[in-house]
Amino acid sequence: LGLTTAVMSDKNIRYLYDIAVARTTVLNVNSGNRVKTRAGWKLLIFASGMTGSIAYAYCNYTGRTPLLNETYCDALGSARLRRSSNEHNGSTSMDLKMERYIRDLQSNIVREVEALDGKKFLVDNWTRKEGGGGTSCILQDGNVFEKAGVNISVVHGTLPTAAVMQMKSRHKELDASKPQNFFAAGISIVMHPHNPMVPTVHMNYRYFELRDEETGGARLWWFGGGSDLTPSYFFEEDAIHFHKTLKSACDKHDKEFYPRFKKWCDKYFYLQHRQEARGIGGIFFDDLNERPAEKLFDFIKDCGNSFLPSYVPLVKKRMNVKFTENEKRWQQLRRGRYVEFNLIWDRGTKFGLQTPGARIESILMSLPLTARWEYMHSPVVGSKEQVILDVLKKPRDWA
Amino acid sequence: LGLTTAVMSDKNIRYLYDIAVARTTVLNVNSGNRVKTRAGWKLLIFASGMTGSIAYAYCNYTGRTPLLNETYCDALGSARLRRSSNEHNGSTSMDLKMERYIRDLQSNIVREVEALDGKKFLVDNWTRKEGGGGTSCILQDGNVFEKAGVNISVVHGTLPTAAVMQMKSRHKELDASKPQNFFAAGISIVMHPHNPMVPTVHMNYRYFELRDEETGGARLWWFGGGSDLTPSYFFEEDAIHFHKTLKSACDKHDKEFYPRFKKWCDKYFYLQHRQEARGIGGIFFDDLNERPAEKLFDFIKDCGNSFLPSYVPLVKKRMNVKFTENEKRWQQLRRGRYVEFNLIWDRGTKFGLQTPGARIESILMSLPLTARWEYMHSPVVGSKEQVILDVLKKPRDWA
Repeated sequence: LGLTTAVMSDKNIRYLYDIAVARTTVLNVNSGNRVKTRAGWKLLIFASGMTGSIAYAYCNYTGRTPLLNETYCDALGSARLRRSSNEHNGSTSMDLKMERYIRDLQSNIVREVEALDGKKFLVDNWTRKEGGGGTSCILQDGNVFEKAGVNISVVHGTLPTAAVMQMKSRHKELDASKPQNFFAAGISIVMHPHNPMVPTVHMNYRYFELRDEETGGARLWWFGGGSDLTPSYFFEEDAIHFHKTLKSACDKHDKEFYPRFKKWCDKYFYLQHRQEARGIGGIFFDDLNERPAEKLFDFIKDCGNSFLPSYVPLVKKRMNVKFTENEKRWQQLRRGRYVEFNLIWDRGTKFGLQTPGARIESILMSLPLTARWEYMHSPVVGSKEQVILDVLKKPRDWA
Repeated sequence: LGLTTAVMSDKNIRYLYDIAVARTTVLNVNSGNRVKTRAGWKLLIFASGMTGSIAYAYCNYTGRTPLLNETYCDALGSARLRRSSNEHNGSTSMDLKMERYIRDLQSNIVREVEALDGKKFLVDNWTRKEGGGGTSCILQDGNVFEKAGVNISVVHGTLPTAAVMQMKSRHKELDASKPQNFFAAGISIVMHPHNPMVPTVHMNYRYFELRDEETGGARLWWFGGGSDLTPSYFFEEDAIHFHKTLKSACDKHDKEFYPRFKKWCDKYFYLQHRQEARGIGGIFFDDLNERPAEKLFDFIKDCGNSFLPSYVPLVKKRMNVKFTENEKRWQQLRRGRYVEFNLIWDRGTKFGLQTPGARIESILMSLPLTARWEYMHSPVVGSKEQVILDVLKKPRDWA
């Protein structure tokens, strides 16, 4: 692969090392793998999820020519090294930064949710034949959560012309006449609790770039994502807490962000065929590139970091509350609606299912463990079930 | 509405009367409504599902000018009467015949399934603001069936240009430059049993016509439909029985029909994203207008009439078989796949959800009462669960 001749800057190695550490944390905690040391050398693990096997490199860290084990390094490692030439100017490219951030975040969230639930996540590293891969962390039939998924994916390759055409409608500057090289890194979380009084939560942040064929650099990039809450029963204080936490993260960057992204969220997570919202909203945005990438990356990090504080207190407050069989049944009906949204309306799911080589199990990880559909179910007027339906009929201001 | 002045032929009244009787049967059996008599007059109920209220007319039957109660008659009654002029030649138009047939069939199937289950269907007459309506018969949480729906709909109105465009790809002769008047009548059945050893079944037959704006007659018409079986566990004899019954119905009309429609079915009921079939198939066809409508109508009737003999014996054989918790769980996972197919791939569902004024509860009636999604579930090699998965991976010949 010619990797042994690659010259890497200290800075670049430093980032690869950080990524390796982030990955290694997950590996350590969950699958018992340990970083082996070699006298005088550091071990870099930098493509665990992405090459099928663990790609690794030994290097002496201060040196400029890491010794790469060719047997275990494949195209991704090579792609990364090739781009090191872009980083001579001292900055590191956003793809590496985003990957490092989402791996850290995944690790933190997994750790905290395991502490909350008492059951461990199953960790699943997977690769995509066409380029890249990801790490899915799944907790199923836990003590608190019926199903929780904390998934990251870092993929690259060539976008089919059809997909480029679809993006063209949102990004006029795109050359839709030919397939495009792309890179995408994202973290995606859905948590469905057992207790019907604890809401389902969803979070997703992603970075996307279209790459110059020659240099491998980003020609066009954007951030997208958001976080939203889907309660089966309505507790106003929960809605307020969730929204206020997100608002604080937004306000640090722009007072316009929260109102704008809150509205976008209400619009996006809407079941047209039911004429009702999926939940009580949160924030949502896409195609965000109106500021320097670094600034938006800071914003994304604040959003991602607000996930645990926005949600965990709600879980702790209600996870041990008693509930009836009827309340559980109502939750199951609401889960049915969740399935409807994800399979019929969600752009990400649709896009995923149409992408060749997409990983179905990761895309459909968002579906609840169990769901229910009754014909013409309609709650009793004035009931708690009616209250949440009314809330879902028209968006409100919470923060 | 000027209906009192409409002149109806005996033949036309005869059909309206037959339809009324078909409807009345359902009404009698299920909602306690009774036909009231009026000395010297017959009561025609001919728009129960379609006008919101029960539209009715008294007539002396041999007379040519039925007295219509204007208060309860609306556009549909009027539309029917308007078309009576087309029927002077002694033949009755296909829309009326198809409606009568599917109402009879619904009635028969509901009766037989009620006898099998021991629980009554709930009957729900509904109307579509844009024209027409239907009758949904639903059995939920029965003794044998978790959920069973036997639905008919008879709708008419104007197709949006977008929908016409979509049809244009299949019917070149269509003028896609303007909205089109249409009529559609269909019966749709899905039955999800409790016992995981009893398969889920689906049946749908429909007649569609695009109408001349001037005369109201059919300018372009076709039949579509089919029936297919979705077992959670594989019993070869069941697959053979189901297919052979359908094949017999087909063979009476054309030896080419069964092989052609069996193949079409395998292709249609396929989950691309899972690379597996929904079930063990059956028959499926669409846009069928290659023969005179009367001939195809005879074929449709034979198909529809073969529904009970194709399915009921399988239910009777296995509805009381013992099963384990694990087998039930497997069934629930398979139900999840059923939901995936219907919400992601089924053209009818997609079309329905995009149609303004479509009745969501009828469209989504096909969803099971309960379903389940586990991350990366994979059956034990050599298990009964693996057997059915293998069957779903590649279509076989059964008849």
